[in-house]
Amino acid sequence: MALADRWLLPDGIMELLPPQARQVELMRRKVLDLYDSWGYDLVMPPIAEHLESLLTGVGHDLDLNTFKVTDGISGHTLGVRADMTPQVARIDAHRLRTEGPSRLCYCGSVLHTHPTNMLASRNPVQLGAELYGHAGPDSDVEVIALMLETLSAVGVAGPISLDLGHVAVFSRLMQLCQLNQQQQADYQDMLQRKALPEIDRFVAALGLDDRSTTWLQTLPRLNGSVDVLARARDLFASDVELVRAVDALDTLAQRVVLRCEGVSTYFDLSELRGYHYHTGVVFAAYTPSYGQALAKGGRYDNIGRDFGRARPATGFSADLKTLIDLSASRPAANTNAVLAPAGEDQTLQQAIRLLRTSGERVVQQLDGEISEPGRFRRQLVPKGGDWVVIDL
Amino acid sequence: MALADRWLLPDGIMELLPPQARQVELMRRKVLDLYDSWGYDLVMPPIAEHLESLLTGVGHDLDLNTFKVTDGISGHTLGVRADMTPQVARIDAHRLRTEGPSRLCYCGSVLHTHPTNMLASRNPVQLGAELYGHAGPDSDVEVIALMLETLSAVGVAGPISLDLGHVAVFSRLMQLCQLNQQQQADYQDMLQRKALPEIDRFVAALGLDDRSTTWLQTLPRLNGSVDVLARARDLFASDVELVRAVDALDTLAQRVVLRCEGVSTYFDLSELRGYHYHTGVVFAAYTPSYGQALAKGGRYDNIGRDFGRARPATGFSADLKTLIDLSASRPAANTNAVLAPAGEDQTLQQAIRLLRTSGERVVQQLDGEISEPGRFRRQLVPKGGDWVVIDL
Repeated sequence: MALADRWLLPDGIMELLPPQARQVELMRRKVLDLYDSWGYDLVMPPIAEHLESLLTGVGHDLDLNTFKVTDGISGHTLGVRADMTPQVARIDAHRLRTEGPSRLCYCGSVLHTHPTNMLASRNPVQLGAELYGHAGPDSDVEVIALMLETLSAVGVAGPISLDLGHVAVFSRLMQLCQLNQQQQADYQDMLQRKALPEIDRFVAALGLDDRSTTWLQTLPRLNGSVDVLARARDLFASDVELVRAVDALDTLAQRVVLRCEGVSTYFDLSELRGYHYHTGVVFAAYTPSYGQALAKGGRYDNIGRDFGRARPATGFSADLKTLIDLSASRPAANTNAVLAPAGEDQTLQQAIRLLRTSGERVVQQLDGEISEPGRFRRQLVPKGGDWVVIDL
Repeated sequence: MALADRWLLPDGIMELLPPQARQVELMRRKVLDLYDSWGYDLVMPPIAEHLESLLTGVGHDLDLNTFKVTDGISGHTLGVRADMTPQVARIDAHRLRTEGPSRLCYCGSVLHTHPTNMLASRNPVQLGAELYGHAGPDSDVEVIALMLETLSAVGVAGPISLDLGHVAVFSRLMQLCQLNQQQQADYQDMLQRKALPEIDRFVAALGLDDRSTTWLQTLPRLNGSVDVLARARDLFASDVELVRAVDALDTLAQRVVLRCEGVSTYFDLSELRGYHYHTGVVFAAYTPSYGQALAKGGRYDNIGRDFGRARPATGFSADLKTLIDLSASRPAANTNAVLAPAGEDQTLQQAIRLLRTSGERVVQQLDGEISEPGRFRRQLVPKGGDWVVIDL
């Protein structure tokens, strides 16, 4: 690598410089304090661990997105975490083993082999909260409310739209319509691309009964405002499980709207984000100025099973840096520092210490240092045997 | 990997659970706020970047201790950072390009292929501060004082001993005694093991002049309290550069003792920690209850050169988790949370919100949730149309 390239970061790898880094640090504190006030305990999983632990129950995408290394000590393959959710699930299942519900939160760097979307970096600061051990709608409402509160705490500008789906709709349909593995994969792929004409032709060619054909052709059209739920209830009236999923979404949305002022809801029954590990409600928050989800999550009751302890689970995650980029607050350099003279004079050192302890930023001048003009607006100077701060 | 092993962490990899994780988080804030109050700006370099950037100017040990992966996007080799110091040097040299001195600090996870000592984990939380662009003793005194202040802020128990050395003594001796590469390496190895009889035999067999023989045999014995400096001045009196290094240490120690109450100093002129990149004073802090350095650093004026911009540099780093393990403060689980009933009742939600905003931790009960006895000592209950907190 040429000398000039040594200081370039790899494509898609970002770093934070002053004053942005301090802004991210302060926002991290604000969000973690918010989670703490809701009863969520902080955990700090390691940045690398056994690959099997990181990929257990999460599907192929995450595998492809995880950097792997060989551990010279054990010979095992380690992964650099690309997602902290499986780590937190492992902690709930095996480190904490709480009997009742446990509420956990986290914030840390993750690393991706490739960006997960066109706007993403390869090293997001992932933050999130997870609620284990409770299966009812109460826990889904709580984590969605906390997710929306996170966006509000960071100050994300603009109206927030909450997208809601339920992966049980898709999985129940696959069961009822008896599609084989390949047909399921093809259908799922078209659903995700919302390729309506292609879906119509594909489903017609499957030669299913009328009910199944109508279901599979209508599913990708079941998105929009709350009236989608009434349409879905009519369409799926003959199957109690499908109706139950629609009802669950309805209840959830009503409670979220009640609790979280100003949020608008959008329903998409063909939403399959995280289908490999999600088991119930899935949700994501959007704002008009950003083409990707700001934060997302859902229910994933089975993740603990792969660690030998099945527990209901629901939670969300987001990239702190993305949220801050979308917030109205801009970082400002600290221009209020006090410049103090050099030296070990005891009264000077005492004065500096007092100022710093009281929350001031004090920079002690170094021998021969000439500070840039305008960098300091205040100075510590001797006055009658004491030290005082004066304006420059 | 067997199911039962999936949740085991690799040897030497640690994670933080409640309540320790919250304690580490709060200590991180305290230390970063301390650095901020001294005028050190926070930077957040990425957890992985081009291997060349991570290893530039730092020697073979760090290379061996760095996990490498191939970047599928560029084909380049990336390293997972094992040390953040070179990253911060790169930032100073190329991202900030400040003309005057720049003060930077950082705190983040690093990953090691093997533990750096018997007491260390392979994923420390490295924190540190660096001062670029100033070559005089003022900057060394400042970073040493800040290092000692860090230990005090974290509450590390017991008396702190500051070990001081100067790598210019060794490098000047190698130059004057004209040892070849292999002889230098052998001698350096024995020095680090403090293998006195072996050194005496080895040096005698080199067939050097009397002065050189005495120097090389006496160097490993030049450690102890401040009288070491007088002995060194006598021994090296015939070479102005050697005397200058001893004088520099003397001045530095006097100023540090003046500024930092209660610190005791220990001198070791054969100290070669980080010899590959250090260029001047080296220092480390010890406490009797821990067999390794708590924090360490030194001057490394040449690191920027490899990034195409030579600047004087001095700084220190430590593992936050080690410091907290050695601090007197123990983490305590939050047992003061308020238990609130389930439901979307608007007055209830408003009461919960107010409590949380005022700094209380409020856990809203989930449908069917039975909390462990003793987990909550306070409860939010309705009273006369309002909500009040009562003791349980």
